[in-house]
Amino acid sequence: MSLSSKSSQDELNKAHEELVSQYNRLKSCKLNLDMSRGKPAAAQLDLSNGILTLHLDSYINCEGNDVRNYGILTGIKECRHLFSELLGIKEDNIIIGGNSSLNLIYDAIARYYMFGKLGSTPWSKLDKVKFLCPVPGYDRHFSICQEFGFEMINIPMDENGPDMDMVEKLVKEDDSIKGMLCVPLYSNPGGICYSDEVVERIASMKTAAEDFTVIWDNAYGIHHVYNEVKLANIFDLASKYGTEDRILYFFSTSKITFPGSGVALIASGDKAIEEIKRRFGIMTIGYNKINQLRTYSFFKTPEGMMEHMKKLGTMLREKFDVVLNKLDSEFKDSDLLKWNRPDGGYFISVYTLPGCAKETVRLAKECGLILTDAGAAYPYGNDPYDSNIRIAPSYPPVEDLKKAMELFCICVKLAAVKKLMK
Amino acid sequence: MSLSSKSSQDELNKAHEELVSQYNRLKSCKLNLDMSRGKPAAAQLDLSNGILTLHLDSYINCEGNDVRNYGILTGIKECRHLFSELLGIKEDNIIIGGNSSLNLIYDAIARYYMFGKLGSTPWSKLDKVKFLCPVPGYDRHFSICQEFGFEMINIPMDENGPDMDMVEKLVKEDDSIKGMLCVPLYSNPGGICYSDEVVERIASMKTAAEDFTVIWDNAYGIHHVYNEVKLANIFDLASKYGTEDRILYFFSTSKITFPGSGVALIASGDKAIEEIKRRFGIMTIGYNKINQLRTYSFFKTPEGMMEHMKKLGTMLREKFDVVLNKLDSEFKDSDLLKWNRPDGGYFISVYTLPGCAKETVRLAKECGLILTDAGAAYPYGNDPYDSNIRIAPSYPPVEDLKKAMELFCICVKLAAVKKLMK
Repeated sequence: MSLSSKSSQDELNKAHEELVSQYNRLKSCKLNLDMSRGKPAAAQLDLSNGILTLHLDSYINCEGNDVRNYGILTGIKECRHLFSELLGIKEDNIIIGGNSSLNLIYDAIARYYMFGKLGSTPWSKLDKVKFLCPVPGYDRHFSICQEFGFEMINIPMDENGPDMDMVEKLVKEDDSIKGMLCVPLYSNPGGICYSDEVVERIASMKTAAEDFTVIWDNAYGIHHVYNEVKLANIFDLASKYGTEDRILYFFSTSKITFPGSGVALIASGDKAIEEIKRRFGIMTIGYNKINQLRTYSFFKTPEGMMEHMKKLGTMLREKFDVVLNKLDSEFKDSDLLKWNRPDGGYFISVYTLPGCAKETVRLAKECGLILTDAGAAYPYGNDPYDSNIRIAPSYPPVEDLKKAMELFCICVKLAAVKKLMK
Repeated sequence: MSLSSKSSQDELNKAHEELVSQYNRLKSCKLNLDMSRGKPAAAQLDLSNGILTLHLDSYINCEGNDVRNYGILTGIKECRHLFSELLGIKEDNIIIGGNSSLNLIYDAIARYYMFGKLGSTPWSKLDKVKFLCPVPGYDRHFSICQEFGFEMINIPMDENGPDMDMVEKLVKEDDSIKGMLCVPLYSNPGGICYSDEVVERIASMKTAAEDFTVIWDNAYGIHHVYNEVKLANIFDLASKYGTEDRILYFFSTSKITFPGSGVALIASGDKAIEEIKRRFGIMTIGYNKINQLRTYSFFKTPEGMMEHMKKLGTMLREKFDVVLNKLDSEFKDSDLLKWNRPDGGYFISVYTLPGCAKETVRLAKECGLILTDAGAAYPYGNDPYDSNIRIAPSYPPVEDLKKAMELFCICVKLAAVKKLMK
């Protein structure tokens, strides 16, 4: 059966009958599968259990401070040093936070909203604040913008990243555009890696808003699965143009060690990070430093971290293979589904025929498979083509994943056929 | 030498000469002592090392969730249950946070500032927001209010807590008064415990602002040192008057286990906590749940926690004794210094002659003893009488504390004598 949008009504009718019967058979299996979020599997987490069981020789860190006590607002030096080497960011420009980089992002936006950035007007005092949102993108970024009442502008992406002609034109003309949301490597959900040229254009572009801020959420910065794609160092490029303070860089070990107790970081240019440190001093007594010391002690060096990521990559690759092989075998010669082939990250992004994503997700849910809501990868949950679905293969065991993909492909076809039938 | 404000000029001149010589002798010792912050001593922290070394049988919590992974936004159930029993607050009305209750307080205020409370106007949209500040109080509370540009109004305290006649009158008339900062048990720095009547009046009073919020920072809720003072349960009283949503209750284990990796909590009435949970869902992926599970596993029950606090209380009592005995021996029959005699908490609050606190702190600093800045316990760092000094005896070892108190008493007298000399 080589179904496509060109299939005749007869073929569609016949396919529909078959698909309904397959669907009902799977429905009777009462599946209970969840592929909605990018959650690490238990086996991935087990690789980091040493963090929880390792013996700390001392609670005094390399600066001579007792990590059990108050102090060290910006995070322990050994942890800042580790990430400095790993990411190529100056140590003094890094602050280590708690276990949620999303929380650091929210707080950073909240601070500019409440107090402004480096002397500019607080965003809460403006009639209108807009954010550029490369799509498809990370739903929780968009939720933050929506919470603050920002107007979100969709920016299309191709294999090199966001459409920079469009971005440059918009930010040059409109000073109410205050920011841009980027997941520059193995983007969520498209798996897109920003090219060197795109990164340089983001660093160099002229912006009407002097407080324009790039949320550089490098969430998958070392999450290679098939090939190791190299991301340009945005701070190196920004320093050429004097725009380091434009960049707020985020990273975390949520998907390296444990989402429930990783460490996150924020980094920026000299002036912006100084301001953030000052406001941190009012906001908190500091973050969990024992967890920082444990995380450091487990990895010690960037090499230790990359060694660990190889093991994780192997585990993820097995899952990605299941998804991609199944999609190949079912849709290789069909136009009912298109998908990306990411080199890393956590997701595979698929595109159904226009108008079929919601129905596909609904059909799957009725059969016991929870997918991320259709449209979630777009601001306001509104995919203009109702086409994109995010597949998050990390959590289910391989056998479950195979069942889930079997069902998923039937749902894609059934939704498409129903759409095409006259 | 029984110096007092009634001493003759001759006596003062003679005392001055002696004090200067004592002071210079101590100065030559090149002391290096810090009593500026309420930091636990290393020996106190050691009592909780089991939290860091205990073996967790499983990472699956009582709800069946893997604490290493995403999820459980409001904190693991066993932790909420523990604090529910300890503090007499309904489990569902508690959210467990990270290691900083100050951060929870800041975030709570920031949310009302940005988004309003339960449908009211965001505080950022108002011309004026005022907060009532019982004094002397906690400097970091005041720093938060200052960061947000709130006008702070001093509320005098007596041994029963804030002057409630004044509070009731103000909040009834002025709808720009949006909140009140309370450390209701063993207050920082006065060691004052709010009486049952004061707690009930805070719960029952009529407020012009419908979004009036009490920051109930029960930071020393189980930190008994001499006697166990019982604080009325403000939620029980608030439920009589339907004002539960007025109360934001905070607690933490910063000074029970480790400031660097304790757990904090926020609790409120049904509607207010629902709103907070919803906004938490945008703000973060959740807090460090492994630390929550470790903390729970170390204590297991409120009784386990109280047993632990007895040991801590014994340690602190030794330090408090040093301070109080020295003050007794030097100033019992003098009016140059008054002080409180707290039953618990972390601080001893002293009052010099008016106009002598800053000079006392300066003299001590010049001699190598760092005290909390004079005036820190008042909004804007402005003690109207320049009289209050906060003594934080927990951190230095007993021998150092004795030296520090020796020097402190000389500085108090020297500053007073200089003031009194014509």
